[in-house]
Amino acid sequence: MSTALEILVDGKACSEGWPLDRALQYGDGLFETLLARKGRIRFEALHADRLARGCDRLAIHADPESIWSQARRAAARHGEALLKLQLTRGDATLRGYAPSGTERARLILSVFPAPRASELPAQIQVVTCPHILGENPALAGIKHCNRLEQVLARASIAKTGAFEGVTASSSGCVISGTMSNVFMELDGELVTPKLDRCGIEGVLRAVVLREAAIVGMPVRTGDFPMSALTRCTGLALSNARLGLLQAHWLDGRKLQGSDRLHDLAARIEALEE
Amino acid sequence: MSTALEILVDGKACSEGWPLDRALQYGDGLFETLLARKGRIRFEALHADRLARGCDRLAIHADPESIWSQARRAAARHGEALLKLQLTRGDATLRGYAPSGTERARLILSVFPAPRASELPAQIQVVTCPHILGENPALAGIKHCNRLEQVLARASIAKTGAFEGVTASSSGCVISGTMSNVFMELDGELVTPKLDRCGIEGVLRAVVLREAAIVGMPVRTGDFPMSALTRCTGLALSNARLGLLQAHWLDGRKLQGSDRLHDLAARIEALEE
Repeated sequence: MSTALEILVDGKACSEGWPLDRALQYGDGLFETLLARKGRIRFEALHADRLARGCDRLAIHADPESIWSQARRAAARHGEALLKLQLTRGDATLRGYAPSGTERARLILSVFPAPRASELPAQIQVVTCPHILGENPALAGIKHCNRLEQVLARASIAKTGAFEGVTASSSGCVISGTMSNVFMELDGELVTPKLDRCGIEGVLRAVVLREAAIVGMPVRTGDFPMSALTRCTGLALSNARLGLLQAHWLDGRKLQGSDRLHDLAARIEALEE
Repeated sequence: MSTALEILVDGKACSEGWPLDRALQYGDGLFETLLARKGRIRFEALHADRLARGCDRLAIHADPESIWSQARRAAARHGEALLKLQLTRGDATLRGYAPSGTERARLILSVFPAPRASELPAQIQVVTCPHILGENPALAGIKHCNRLEQVLARASIAKTGAFEGVTASSSGCVISGTMSNVFMELDGELVTPKLDRCGIEGVLRAVVLREAAIVGMPVRTGDFPMSALTRCTGLALSNARLGLLQAHWLDGRKLQGSDRLHDLAARIEALEE
């Protein structure tokens, strides 16, 4: 793209910004949403693992030590905060989709006020979402910047007034919430969807699975049809911001709730990690 | 996102750029690749139609007259050029996936040298691509900025030395090239894949379908399994830059070629539009 003859932004010659950043052009990048608590990043090692997997998958080259030392310093400065860490492939050096391999990754770290429990509604309402998620194993699991499916799904959920919406894959399986992973108590067992064809492998999801294993509480990962949602007795959402949060209502049905999900949530909240 | 406490880019406080542009964060935007010839945008009305469909689908609000008058002026200034017109949803005004509805769209117009026929290889080699395309009708057809599937596919094709790769949907149907639509001569008829579950409805594809109808040369749109590629006797690629271009080789098999695709390509090349 060094060959561009002219670049105009809103009609003016562009003298700043990164009009050729590949994340801007193609969503060619990765991100992490980090919770800082007492000046430290919660579950930093798991976030770093997922970012590294994303970099491997997309062949984005960046120095993890530089990335995480910057994130740690920001967490230390702000104490309690929500951090968005975005790593783009950087400015395009060629026109077109193929990376040249000579791009220099760009790190964008944005700091937001810490979430407060008082921001949560007293009753967590979840609905099934009409939007589906396309299946592509090459992109499944990682937290890349192609998020239009979530944008559309989230916009439709926002209109319903519900806190979260559960989305299905194009094959009709439960995958996740629009901004969270999901755990269900279904026919007496704890389950969570497999994410090998779409969805993001949440860091909190990994923590839930790890802690459940530690306390000897099996969680089965598998493929579950959307009809499972009409039968589950408990449903919890997980992400870095929320931790593990039980829903009270699912499509207008009052959920009985799950003692096991309750205990796991309390255990995870108390972790010093 | 007006609530950001701090934004760092590569470790420095960010005083320029658009770190919160939603296209950068989520690929939340649209683009058009335009060919300027003799100071005019080829097939401008069809590009404007597709961009408008994308704006409708993603609920991005922008004034088409302002967009296209800027593009026309750039085409007039450069005469012969390739233009990339990108329309992002603009800077985020809230944290998270849901648009607030108060974003102001950003228009980025980048001008590149006109493509030259001499840049094309003498023999156009096409291969089948191992990367698949996820299926999501909500995003099918429009030219949005979630293009990691194309980035990965294009990177793998670049390694083979082939000019283009043909990708399948997750259901195993032929969809398109990584940067083009495809037309096949198959069992004596001209066909092109339906794009209701994935793929981009190319402007040149629309021109091919229109011109074929004008000259009474039926092109059937449908679902074709990838195995159709082993049987087709002609294959042509279409996009704004290439026009309609016949391939000589498909997965190492010499193609017989199609007189009808040849005639259509010549007809389209000669259009003054």
